[in-house]
Amino acid sequence: MSQVRVHNLSLSLDGFGTGEGQSLEEPFGHAGHRLMSWAFPTRTFREMGLPGQGPGTTGIDDVLASRWDRGIGVEIMGRHKFGPQRGPWPDDGWRGWWGEDPPFHTPVIVLTHHPRPPLVMKGGTRFEFLDASPEEALARARELAGDLDVRIGGGVQAVREFLAADLVDSMHLAVVPIVLGRGERLWDGLEGLEQRLAVESVASGSGLTHLLFSRPGTGG
Amino acid sequence: MSQVRVHNLSLSLDGFGTGEGQSLEEPFGHAGHRLMSWAFPTRTFREMGLPGQGPGTTGIDDVLASRWDRGIGVEIMGRHKFGPQRGPWPDDGWRGWWGEDPPFHTPVIVLTHHPRPPLVMKGGTRFEFLDASPEEALARARELAGDLDVRIGGGVQAVREFLAADLVDSMHLAVVPIVLGRGERLWDGLEGLEQRLAVESVASGSGLTHLLFSRPGTGG
Repeated sequence: MSQVRVHNLSLSLDGFGTGEGQSLEEPFGHAGHRLMSWAFPTRTFREMGLPGQGPGTTGIDDVLASRWDRGIGVEIMGRHKFGPQRGPWPDDGWRGWWGEDPPFHTPVIVLTHHPRPPLVMKGGTRFEFLDASPEEALARARELAGDLDVRIGGGVQAVREFLAADLVDSMHLAVVPIVLGRGERLWDGLEGLEQRLAVESVASGSGLTHLLFSRPGTGG
Repeated sequence: MSQVRVHNLSLSLDGFGTGEGQSLEEPFGHAGHRLMSWAFPTRTFREMGLPGQGPGTTGIDDVLASRWDRGIGVEIMGRHKFGPQRGPWPDDGWRGWWGEDPPFHTPVIVLTHHPRPPLVMKGGTRFEFLDASPEEALARARELAGDLDVRIGGGVQAVREFLAADLVDSMHLAVVPIVLGRGERLWDGLEGLEQRLAVESVASGSGLTHLLFSRPGTGG
């Protein structure tokens, strides 16, 4: 059975996965780049096309980051990860944050209450827009993924909904040593999560902590 | 200059330092013993009188726990740490959770809007009840502590108030891998704390993460 996985989801110490006030200019709102800045220097993110000098780091941050696309057949993302729009889609030519060749290279299901025709991108990425519950979206994702795993790619709200529905088998969180104060909190409504997913903790330089959740018995 | 320190404050992953519904039977509310259970097996806590077999562990959890009383001249605690009562003190003979010989062995300032005469205990502990702001309480604590350090002993609300007033020089948090869902949250109102206190992270077995905050320049 293929697994449902979350990777590289960054949280502040106070549990926010994005700041307040997402916009085209600030995809993470008032958090700016602070939540993801641990990942930018890694080789994995450099190879996704993020700017930077040199080949990128290959330490524990990179080792963990690099797992994100291994064995993945499809991503499910929330609408807020796809773009800053709200409500009915405007006729603005938006095709995601990632340009014409997004780093996914698989089908991507975008959850939205406003379905629209798929967008076929370069390199194998195909955005499909679905108005569906987590269970329904996962059923469609498994059709697309075959034997491969399904990644819940974020944002925070999408991950929280899949966790609440107990559909996640493994999750990698990067806890960044900042107190963000406001934004979208991952943990709300997830009391007792540790009874379903075991937790390991790995400290990395500068106060960053990686948390690895896995469902007992899955070997996740 | 003496420092103001916080030690062994346990938080859930979602940032709660105590659960909902504190009572005589459940000092941590619905959290039960889960927040402090990492500390019970340590030699430090065994020597405070907690029940258990054998001499106690001496690994990293104990090393960190053991710093709590080194060089401390006084503790400041919130009323909720002292006891479950609310409002005017009832005539119930309450002298704290810790019996006649509490583990503090120093003066202890209990913050309360309902002052009362001091309680002199065995072993050097003396509870003094003060209706004061954090700044006022710290001034009194420094009178009592001389050259020694001041510990903010908890609970969560007291620590949060001293952090908000930027009076804390070093803080040790133990983040326990549970999602508590409700209770008293440490982080509320502390946006940007990392700009005042640097953070180190140390992972310990079973998903526990120790966070060490210190004011740059204090060597804390």
